Amino acid sequence: MKATAFIEPGKVEVKNVEKPKIEKPTDAVIRILRACVCGSDLWWFRGISKRDANTLVGHEAIGIVDEVGSDVTDVKKGDFVIVPFTHGCGHCAACLAGFDGNCMNQEAGGNNGYQGEYLRFTNANWALVKVPGSPSDYSDETLNSLLTLADVLATGYHAAASAEVKPGDTVVVMGDGAVGLCGVISAKLRGAKRIIAMSRHEDRQKLALEFGATDIVEERGDEAVSHVMELTDNNGADAVLECVGTEQSVDTATKVARPGAIVGRVGVPQKAEMNTNNLFWKNIGLRGGIASVTTYDKNILLDAVLSGKINPGKVFTKRFELDDIQSAYEAMDKREAIKSLVIVSKN
Amino acid sequence: MKATAFIEPGKVEVKNVEKPKIEKPTDAVIRILRACVCGSDLWWFRGISKRDANTLVGHEAIGIVDEVGSDVTDVKKGDFVIVPFTHGCGHCAACLAGFDGNCMNQEAGGNNGYQGEYLRFTNANWALVKVPGSPSDYSDETLNSLLTLADVLATGYHAAASAEVKPGDTVVVMGDGAVGLCGVISAKLRGAKRIIAMSRHEDRQKLALEFGATDIVEERGDEAVSHVMELTDNNGADAVLECVGTEQSVDTATKVARPGAIVGRVGVPQKAEMNTNNLFWKNIGLRGGIASVTTYDKNILLDAVLSGKINPGKVFTKRFELDDIQSAYEAMDKREAIKSLVIVSKN
Repeated sequence: MKATAFIEPGKVEVKNVEKPKIEKPTDAVIRILRACVCGSDLWWFRGISKRDANTLVGHEAIGIVDEVGSDVTDVKKGDFVIVPFTHGCGHCAACLAGFDGNCMNQEAGGNNGYQGEYLRFTNANWALVKVPGSPSDYSDETLNSLLTLADVLATGYHAAASAEVKPGDTVVVMGDGAVGLCGVISAKLRGAKRIIAMSRHEDRQKLALEFGATDIVEERGDEAVSHVMELTDNNGADAVLECVGTEQSVDTATKVARPGAIVGRVGVPQKAEMNTNNLFWKNIGLRGGIASVTTYDKNILLDAVLSGKINPGKVFTKRFELDDIQSAYEAMDKREAIKSLVIVSKN
Repeated sequence: MKATAFIEPGKVEVKNVEKPKIEKPTDAVIRILRACVCGSDLWWFRGISKRDANTLVGHEAIGIVDEVGSDVTDVKKGDFVIVPFTHGCGHCAACLAGFDGNCMNQEAGGNNGYQGEYLRFTNANWALVKVPGSPSDYSDETLNSLLTLADVLATGYHAAASAEVKPGDTVVVMGDGAVGLCGVISAKLRGAKRIIAMSRHEDRQKLALEFGATDIVEERGDEAVSHVMELTDNNGADAVLECVGTEQSVDTATKVARPGAIVGRVGVPQKAEMNTNNLFWKNIGLRGGIASVTTYDKNILLDAVLSGKINPGKVFTKRFELDDIQSAYEAMDKREAIKSLVIVSKN
C-alpha cells in the first residue's frame, strides 16, 4: 500500500509499504479516505524539529474501519469514522476529566502514518469517532468539515474551552492559521459576542470574518495591544486564544487579557521559560495543551458539523491527490494554502 | 493616634501620628478594632524586600466606620466593617468579572496603615464589607474569624477558586501557613472530598485536619510527588492550591496535578521565569494572583463565618496589644505563631 514518508527537510515521498495489521486487541486498521497536512508537520518539513528519515507521517484523517481487534466493540468493520490524532481510552482519570489528549493509557508512537492508504490505530475502542451513515451520504464540503474533527477544529476548540469562553464574551484570537480560524469558529460556537481576530493576510481575514470574527487587528506586539485596548474600552479581552506559540504571541496574549481572563493556548510553545509574574499580578490564567479530540467531537463538534452550524472544512483551500503529497506540503510551507487537503481514496 | 511604622529590617514601632482625614469623596476613615500580621509583612520585616523607613504598615483589619466621603453611600458612620486589603470600585470590568483585587480604579498606596488606631480607606463605597450588627454581638472567636475576611481567608479561597475546586475533587494544598490552612477551609467549603495538606509542622497539621484535611504529606520535592501519586492511584490531584510561592513549591504543584487540573496560586512568586512547557504537555492550568476579597466576602465567606460553618479565626494562635506590635511580628518571624492577632481597641 501507499504511505507518505519523511525523507529529509523539504522532502516527503509516497512509498510502497506493507499494509498494517492488528497487533493488539485494542487496535483497529483504518482505510483512509481523506487526510491533510498540519501546521505542526511543517516543523520537521522545515527542519526546525528533528525527525528520522523514512518514518511515516500525518496525524489527521477520516476513513472506514477495515478490521478491529477483539477488545474493540464501539466501532466495527465498515463504520465511517473520524480518526483523531489522540488515542484516549475513555476510562482513565485524564479521559474521565475530559482530557483525552493526555490519556494515561495511550501507546507511544501511535499517531503517525495517517497520510497513507491504511493505518493501524492504537487504543481504538473509545478514541475513534463514529460518523452516522456512509461517506456517500455527505457532500464534499461536509466530508472536509468532518476531516477537521481529527485535529484542527478540536484544537481550535481546545483553545476556546481552555480560555473558558462564555456567552457574551469579547475574545481575542491570536494566529490566523487553520487552528486560529477554527478558534474563531469555536469562540462563536461557545457564544462569544465579539471576536477580534489578529491577522495580516487578506485571505485569512476574509475567512475569519466568514467564521464569525467581528474585528480584525493587523498589528503585532505593542501596537496590537494598543489596538485591542482601544477596541475594548481599555478593558482587554474576557478570553484570549493563543494559536501561534511564539514568545511574542504569548506575550501579546497576556497583555490584551483583562484581569482574571484566561489565555487558552494550543500553539506549541517555542520557548519553555516565560515570565509568569505578569500573569500573577493581573490574575491572568494560562491553560491549554493537547486537544481533547474525542471528547469535543462526541460532545459538541460532530453535531455542530452535521447540523451545518459550522463549516470548518473551508480551511482547506487547496486539494491534492496522495501521489502529489510533496505539493501539499509545499503549498502550506509557502503559505499558498491555509491548509492542504489530501484525497487518499474517493470511496 | 497610634500607628505601626516600619523602622528597619527586624524592627517595627508604634508611632504617634496625625489621625487621617477624608481627602476624597470616595474615602472613609475607619476606627480599627483588630488587625493582624500577614506572612507577606515578613518580607520587608526580614529585609527580603525593600521598604522605606517610617512608612505605616498592615493591611488587614476589622473596624467601625468613623467618617465617610460624600460619594460613600454603601456604608455609614458607625457601621461595623471588614476592611479588605483590596479596594475594588465594584463597577469596572475587573470588578464586574469578580476580580476586584485588580480593580482598574484603585488608588496607589491605598493598602497600608491598618495596624493603627485609624485608617483612611480609599475607594470605600463598594470595597468595605458591612457586618450586620455591632462587634458586641459577636464572640471573640467570631471576631477573629471576621478579621480573616480582610485577607487571609479570601486569599486561601482565591487559591481554591482559581484552581476551580469542584464538589468531589481531590485537592492538594501546598503550604501550611495561615493562607494554606485557609486554602484547606476553602477547598472543603467548595465541596472537595479529599484534601491532602502538605505540612511538616505538628501544630499546623493538627489545624489542617481540624479544618478538613483528610491526608497529610510531610515530604517535599520528588518525595512529596511520589507520596501524592501513591495517595491518588497515580492520577494526581484534580486541583492544586499553591500557597507558598517558591520555585520548588510551584514545581511540585504542577507535578502532583492530574492532566487538565489547575494550579491556583496565591503564593507571591519568588521567581518570575518558569518552564511552562511542563504545564502545556500535561494541560495543567496556572491561575491566581491577588484575591477578590470583597467579591468572595459578600458572595460566600461572610455568610460561611456568620453561620458558624467555618472557623478560620483559629489561625490566630497568639494575640498581642498594639503597643506590643514588635512581639507580634517576632512571633511570626520565629514561627511561634501561625498568625499574630493585634488587638487595637476592645470596642
